[in-house]
Amino acid sequence: MKKLLSHINSPKDLKKLSASELPLLAQELREFIIDIVATKEGHLGASLGVVELTIALHYVFDTPNDKLIWDVGHQAYGHKILTGRKEIFDTNRQKDGISGFPKRSESEYDDFGTGHSSTAISAILGMAMASKLQGDYSKQHIAVVGDASIASGMAFEGLNHLGVSNTNALIVLNDNAIGIDPSVGALKKYLTNVKKGTAKDENIFECLNLNYSGPLDGHDIHALIAVLELLKNVPGPKLLHVITTKGKGLKKAEENQVVYHAPGKFDKFTGERIHKTGEEQPPKYQDVFGQTLVELARKNERIVGITPAMPSGSSLKFMMDEIPDRAFDVGIAEQHAVTLAAGMATQGLIPFCNIYSTFLQRAYDQVIHDVALQNLPVVFFLDRAGLVGQDGPTHHGVFDLAYLRCIPNLTIFSPMNEMELRNIMFTVQQGTTGPIAIRYPRGRGVNLEWKNQFEPIVLGKARCLQEGSRIAILTIGHIGNRVPQLLEKLDNPNEIGHYDMRFVKPLDHKLLKHVFQTYDRIITVEDGCKMGGFGSAILEFANQENFKNPVKIFGIPDNFVEHGTISETHTMAGIDFDAIFSYIKST
Amino acid sequence: MKKLLSHINSPKDLKKLSASELPLLAQELREFIIDIVATKEGHLGASLGVVELTIALHYVFDTPNDKLIWDVGHQAYGHKILTGRKEIFDTNRQKDGISGFPKRSESEYDDFGTGHSSTAISAILGMAMASKLQGDYSKQHIAVVGDASIASGMAFEGLNHLGVSNTNALIVLNDNAIGIDPSVGALKKYLTNVKKGTAKDENIFECLNLNYSGPLDGHDIHALIAVLELLKNVPGPKLLHVITTKGKGLKKAEENQVVYHAPGKFDKFTGERIHKTGEEQPPKYQDVFGQTLVELARKNERIVGITPAMPSGSSLKFMMDEIPDRAFDVGIAEQHAVTLAAGMATQGLIPFCNIYSTFLQRAYDQVIHDVALQNLPVVFFLDRAGLVGQDGPTHHGVFDLAYLRCIPNLTIFSPMNEMELRNIMFTVQQGTTGPIAIRYPRGRGVNLEWKNQFEPIVLGKARCLQEGSRIAILTIGHIGNRVPQLLEKLDNPNEIGHYDMRFVKPLDHKLLKHVFQTYDRIITVEDGCKMGGFGSAILEFANQENFKNPVKIFGIPDNFVEHGTISETHTMAGIDFDAIFSYIKST
Repeated sequence: MKKLLSHINSPKDLKKLSASELPLLAQELREFIIDIVATKEGHLGASLGVVELTIALHYVFDTPNDKLIWDVGHQAYGHKILTGRKEIFDTNRQKDGISGFPKRSESEYDDFGTGHSSTAISAILGMAMASKLQGDYSKQHIAVVGDASIASGMAFEGLNHLGVSNTNALIVLNDNAIGIDPSVGALKKYLTNVKKGTAKDENIFECLNLNYSGPLDGHDIHALIAVLELLKNVPGPKLLHVITTKGKGLKKAEENQVVYHAPGKFDKFTGERIHKTGEEQPPKYQDVFGQTLVELARKNERIVGITPAMPSGSSLKFMMDEIPDRAFDVGIAEQHAVTLAAGMATQGLIPFCNIYSTFLQRAYDQVIHDVALQNLPVVFFLDRAGLVGQDGPTHHGVFDLAYLRCIPNLTIFSPMNEMELRNIMFTVQQGTTGPIAIRYPRGRGVNLEWKNQFEPIVLGKARCLQEGSRIAILTIGHIGNRVPQLLEKLDNPNEIGHYDMRFVKPLDHKLLKHVFQTYDRIITVEDGCKMGGFGSAILEFANQENFKNPVKIFGIPDNFVEHGTISETHTMAGIDFDAIFSYIKST
Repeated sequence: MKKLLSHINSPKDLKKLSASELPLLAQELREFIIDIVATKEGHLGASLGVVELTIALHYVFDTPNDKLIWDVGHQAYGHKILTGRKEIFDTNRQKDGISGFPKRSESEYDDFGTGHSSTAISAILGMAMASKLQGDYSKQHIAVVGDASIASGMAFEGLNHLGVSNTNALIVLNDNAIGIDPSVGALKKYLTNVKKGTAKDENIFECLNLNYSGPLDGHDIHALIAVLELLKNVPGPKLLHVITTKGKGLKKAEENQVVYHAPGKFDKFTGERIHKTGEEQPPKYQDVFGQTLVELARKNERIVGITPAMPSGSSLKFMMDEIPDRAFDVGIAEQHAVTLAAGMATQGLIPFCNIYSTFLQRAYDQVIHDVALQNLPVVFFLDRAGLVGQDGPTHHGVFDLAYLRCIPNLTIFSPMNEMELRNIMFTVQQGTTGPIAIRYPRGRGVNLEWKNQFEPIVLGKARCLQEGSRIAILTIGHIGNRVPQLLEKLDNPNEIGHYDMRFVKPLDHKLLKHVFQTYDRIITVEDGCKMGGFGSAILEFANQENFKNPVKIFGIPDNFVEHGTISETHTMAGIDFDAIFSYIKST
């Protein structure tokens, strides 16, 4: 039982406390977060780091009348708990439970949905400009932005406008020197100097015409309240620089901030992570990528690795550790990552540029304008493609096939298993294939033995996994592993053919002609959006060749898919085993 | 006859001149540019502004061994003329002539293709990192970036990495306080202060760990050479701040920099623009947008206008002049523009966010993550949609239907004429339609009388323009105006039906059912890419409804379309009058 927290159901209740009670509340809130996340899992470190800041903001400001945006949203657990979602916080990230990110439809206190980084400055400025136009000069507008996020180009665009906007907006720079992985870049270096007190007289934020305060200890709740009260009455755009420790209050989390960003289950007292034991599992696609990259890069000096701020998540870290000269974390800077790769490719390097599918949306223009138009041999690895599960609609990587398919010169491949991923990596390392995007899902492959001898893959060539007669199932990527299980359950499996198409572009026209001539009916299966996706490509082929076979497309329908386990989200989207099985049984 | 320039066919020849001859060469080069652009048209002002800088760079550095990138590329005419393209410079921007932008396939001196802004820092850093990895420490790497471009987020991402890169790279900041329109933002304000000498001790570029020199008079060729020679031997990343005047050397161009960015034909002696006379023409879609926006915004206070750096091009300038409080140029910051609009929309405003189709690629993630996912009523106006003509493949707006169609919640509309544009603007201003993208081409509409009384458009409802029997032509947008001309030339026009589909999403299913039931054969016509575009949407509909009618899709095939007149580019893409006419005749 939490003495103070148990009485707090909204910021109104919070304001009834005296300032001297707030440190105890902070302790209780921190324990509450740890208790729940220890068993329910989630993003731990970021929220622990802003417990005092969260309390101070809701204590000083008049939310939800005042607007408050949490950039990225990993940090918002405390905010959710203090704003009426304490009782349901244990449903965090579960199907039909609350979202792991701020979400407008969930609470009037979530002023702006976040998930992707660096949007908060633009959004809060939009709100502040609206208040000004509406003649509401009393309203406060606050965005909390981490130091890794503020180094992203989009945040700079926001600051550059904010500085000349004459609006009542406060950016709280939550500087903990880390995003998911440690922050990088010149701005980080600058901020480090500021903290050490060794920087010159210069202040980069004042150069941008912002009123700068700080740096301030972000765990000193009384200091925070004092400065926020003060800033409330300072007109114009302001930036408050607070220093926090990610994972604050849980020793293990403070000591290993990367792992405790989202540690899985752990012991709430010791912080010790609870490792699942049991039978050996196939490797994560991420680790297949990371290990294979090191294997290839050791022999091929032209290979370089690039990640925008996801060395751990993507396992590019393996190469950063083994071959640090040729593996680069460029920070949350997808646009830069892609054009940097293009520049390298002009000089004969083969960049392996690993970007989560959902984040490549941030560099769409660069893929078209800098890579594909110039036909440069950049290899994109689209990690977390398809439905990603608990992170939900902000993070699902379901649009990539549609948005990439229309780009000339670009090859699009998706491996059905670990060996296919290894073999395509082996194939593309010569740089002769032009630009190529290789998409694979979050999670594990299907083979315990996966370190095969490399075999090259012929570009544009699909695989027949089983010949049949009546129905052909065309799959793309990992979801194709569902088909063998399907066949086991069917009475007449010999009627069913299975083709792993491998390439969404170019399509294997020769094989497809054979398929459309041989089978009555075609089924396509993908874990991407239907509109414009893989199934749509098959329709274009059939139309061009004048085939009239019925085509049934399994893909994500035209709506955003909510959060849940990956399996649950597949069911929501109608692409799970049962959906396909029922359809086949019924035809 | 140019005394010096006539002997210069490559930078080798340039290096034979003594430094004292260079001012005369600059004069000759400037005259040469003016002579040709006066009759052949093109981007004038930017190249005039960097004549001295161009000469100095090629004089000091060892191009093409040293790498040189011109950001955006409007400034590269002098570069093209000095690097072997003098004799063919009069083919600039014409079909089969040289590109108006640097282009790798055109010359070994064009190290990186540009067109969209702010890519040069990332690309040159990629090259510099490659040189370092390859052990080539002698090579110089230079990028010339304008002050409007360096304020874009992507440029900041590049600088943030550059500052910690320890590479031999030089950024020349060409500060003329203007892009196409005058520069905006806090960074511009800062740079203005630096130039005036009133800035504090602070230097924003030194904060980012760059070696800063300047500000320097960019028209003083001797000073430029001296500092470039010096910087050649300074290790590490550097930034040289030069001050230039856009349009330098042509009085009219200096005085009216916005108009003389690309003035059309003009008198090469006086600079006076040559206005076409002749019969009255229909208005530009841009002006229909701009004027209608003012008309609506005067009555509806919720409307705000946003442009990322294209007030003149988009005609948002009309609203900025008439209702300055509610019309915003945010600079080259498409990402920020979109999320700013999203923030405003949460507070009840109806943002009319005008972004060229090709530049919305820069804000793709923001459209998905910040607008569509939250179902906010932001109205996107995609100007310059379709093939844009002389600007060529970097600027064609041909991917939009494909990349937008897969986004849930988003409505996509394209007006066939001025009235349709006005009516959809009238319809969406209540903000009840959710997010919507409205795409229209560069250039003129079709009606001299276009200021119609507003009529609302029912969302998702197409128009039947002519009933027929055998063939139905489904068109989207302005290209639909081709059909009446087609019908005039056909022997049996009554067989042909014509439907202006208006909405690519949602499709008018009811009307489409009628069409597929009534006609033998369907033709779709769009000025966007075939893969995943409008025609593909029609195939998805037909497949879902099990219609088997043959569908012929006219759209841009799967390659990048080169430059030429708009009409020529339509022919290259196989979507011109003749292509459709021949097809109909043959069926």
